[in-house]
Amino acid sequence: MADSVTTPRGMRDFLPAEKARREHALRVIREVYSAHGFDEIETPAMENSERLYGGLGGDNEKLAFAVMRRALSADDLAMAAASGDPLALADLGLRFDLTVPLARFYATHRGQLPPVFRSIHIGPVWRAERPQKGRYRQFVQCDIDIIGETSTIAEGELFAATSATLEALGLSGCTIRLNDRRVLSGILRGWGIPVEHSGRALITLDKLDKIGADKVAEELRELGITRADVASDIAALAAADWDTVRAAPDWLDPTAAAHLLALHAAFPDIQLQFDPTLVRGMGYYTGTIFEIAHPKMGYSLGGGGRYDGMIGRFLGEDVPACGFSIGFERIVDLITLPDDQRSRAVVLVHDADVSVTTLLALKRSLIARGDRVRLERRVKNMRALLDRAALEGFDVFSNVTSGSGDASTLEFRSLR
Amino acid sequence: MADSVTTPRGMRDFLPAEKARREHALRVIREVYSAHGFDEIETPAMENSERLYGGLGGDNEKLAFAVMRRALSADDLAMAAASGDPLALADLGLRFDLTVPLARFYATHRGQLPPVFRSIHIGPVWRAERPQKGRYRQFVQCDIDIIGETSTIAEGELFAATSATLEALGLSGCTIRLNDRRVLSGILRGWGIPVEHSGRALITLDKLDKIGADKVAEELRELGITRADVASDIAALAAADWDTVRAAPDWLDPTAAAHLLALHAAFPDIQLQFDPTLVRGMGYYTGTIFEIAHPKMGYSLGGGGRYDGMIGRFLGEDVPACGFSIGFERIVDLITLPDDQRSRAVVLVHDADVSVTTLLALKRSLIARGDRVRLERRVKNMRALLDRAALEGFDVFSNVTSGSGDASTLEFRSLR
Repeated sequence: MADSVTTPRGMRDFLPAEKARREHALRVIREVYSAHGFDEIETPAMENSERLYGGLGGDNEKLAFAVMRRALSADDLAMAAASGDPLALADLGLRFDLTVPLARFYATHRGQLPPVFRSIHIGPVWRAERPQKGRYRQFVQCDIDIIGETSTIAEGELFAATSATLEALGLSGCTIRLNDRRVLSGILRGWGIPVEHSGRALITLDKLDKIGADKVAEELRELGITRADVASDIAALAAADWDTVRAAPDWLDPTAAAHLLALHAAFPDIQLQFDPTLVRGMGYYTGTIFEIAHPKMGYSLGGGGRYDGMIGRFLGEDVPACGFSIGFERIVDLITLPDDQRSRAVVLVHDADVSVTTLLALKRSLIARGDRVRLERRVKNMRALLDRAALEGFDVFSNVTSGSGDASTLEFRSLR
Repeated sequence: MADSVTTPRGMRDFLPAEKARREHALRVIREVYSAHGFDEIETPAMENSERLYGGLGGDNEKLAFAVMRRALSADDLAMAAASGDPLALADLGLRFDLTVPLARFYATHRGQLPPVFRSIHIGPVWRAERPQKGRYRQFVQCDIDIIGETSTIAEGELFAATSATLEALGLSGCTIRLNDRRVLSGILRGWGIPVEHSGRALITLDKLDKIGADKVAEELRELGITRADVASDIAALAAADWDTVRAAPDWLDPTAAAHLLALHAAFPDIQLQFDPTLVRGMGYYTGTIFEIAHPKMGYSLGGGGRYDGMIGRFLGEDVPACGFSIGFERIVDLITLPDDQRSRAVVLVHDADVSVTTLLALKRSLIARGDRVRLERRVKNMRALLDRAALEGFDVFSNVTSGSGDASTLEFRSLR
């Protein structure tokens, strides 16, 4: 029977060892982001449907879990059946990202926030995706955003905080790939792609890593591209570097180029790569876009960009904003938990007849010395029990009988 | 427009000051529980409907938020309309407590857990209650449970861990009220209340604090009570203490009495009160039940009990279990955040023309010294900006111009 008792499809339990790693990562992330001047906020798991399905979430809106209205009547059900629209029965939905809730939060509380607001926003999000390796229906997002800052100092602070966090997690040597939506627009314009097809052209260009320059060029031709040798253009773009930016080619938006160079100058010790083929999916980006990667990993560990038009959507006015989202679920798989900082983790193995009073008094005095303490009743197979405790990070054990004195008289033996 | 942009009804945002207090409380709770030998686990926010609505949650099941199946067809809607059952459209629900998920977790992973499993389980739960002061539709529960231990050592470890946690949060001097479901059964039996009415009789007795002994007696008479002077019985019960337990009156279940006295002996330094009128609502309790209160508060700060029949429900066999749930939302309102442990929180006030490179280099060197650093661009009304920073916990500020040298040349002035 037990085999059939599982979590909902695509959702996970975390057992102690993995949960400890997750909490360690969250502690480090919070600490470093806080040192960098960011302040943590929290928003609820649900948002009202009309905001969640307001068009800010792109394709992710279609993946939202809808929450049914309470006390639905027979009439409500009949009306939904007649209209064929199940969403008529839902008034709430589970958030599918933290960006829509952040925009809503900012609109709700703007008067209480500083002019430049640096937020840490961490929490689970839910998407009804087809479950597959490394993709879950509930997962943690971990965002920092700077709202109210137009200058590239915002991007700079995000890069500094994010790379310091990854370093503190033991993932040093990361590389940030950097581009700007205006650079991409300039490239598409140079190729003669009509503005109405630019969205589809970017989706195509985004597949460069997977399908190669020739295939991208072929797909772009279907979008009405006028230029002959696009494949070699693409190859040239993929080879671009900071010298390319300094050379100020025609297709390079000059404002974007100035921003990119300012950021490059500010990070002598971070690997900052200019990559004019970097796209990033979300349609709301308006300026700089970036992704962070580790040399040992074939995939991005996070990314973000500037999205000046979006945060103000619920306010009715534009507010500049820039954010970086680290891929928590990917990062947590890469880190190792440092040795516990407590002096010792102790197992007290006790006979069944030792009184509650004695056991709790011993436990209390060991905890007061800084130990972590677990009680275990003596069983026949002590070896298995102690081996398991050692695996779970315990260091020593001691035998407690009804004749044991206080904690100072206990003898401890190593579990390793 | 901004006024109308709110969280869903009964759900809250947390701004930085309150979020910091919540995270501080969670850190302390995790640290103390861990020292006491408990291990944290995590379960998803949702469970499959058939488990969530399986009868383990009592009245709370009715308050669950139901999550709609994805890709509902017109047929599905028509069938739900015909049956009049909206839950036919839901396959998942948001958890309304952490006990049902814990029982499900244990059934799923029993083979990987130690024979006596001490869990920390912290997370949001959701209930569609009518919002009112202090009652929310999303709130954090914070449970410890010991699964697999029949002896009162389980209760003892829960009391020790919980009172140490409250003390670490600055809430010392708490009192634990203690009773046993078997004591209550003995009392009802003595009064001649038929077993089939014992549930209703307990609900009545639970109202003693609110309606008084006379009114309780009156309601009990309607349940077929045979004894004449119930009101004075109730008054005597309310006055019971440890001497009452030692005197072993007829109505006191002897096994329960022995357990209660063992616990009393083990806690010379915690205020442990015997209260035979303590009921606690949930029907799944089978033995000891308890509530923790602070002398300054008129309400309980948490509670729990033994529920030996429940954890094994999904396993198909009984497993002993005992848990303590602290009232996180109440506790977090009572604590004050300790002064930040970092050496300083620094505001760097900079002119608009200072380069990103200079600002980030200054920020980096101050953070490396252990400072928390926020950048602020110089504005006309500097007083307001600095006052706000002081309120938000910043200690000093320094002015940065394009001519500023490195961090060692900055002068800092107090914000206090």
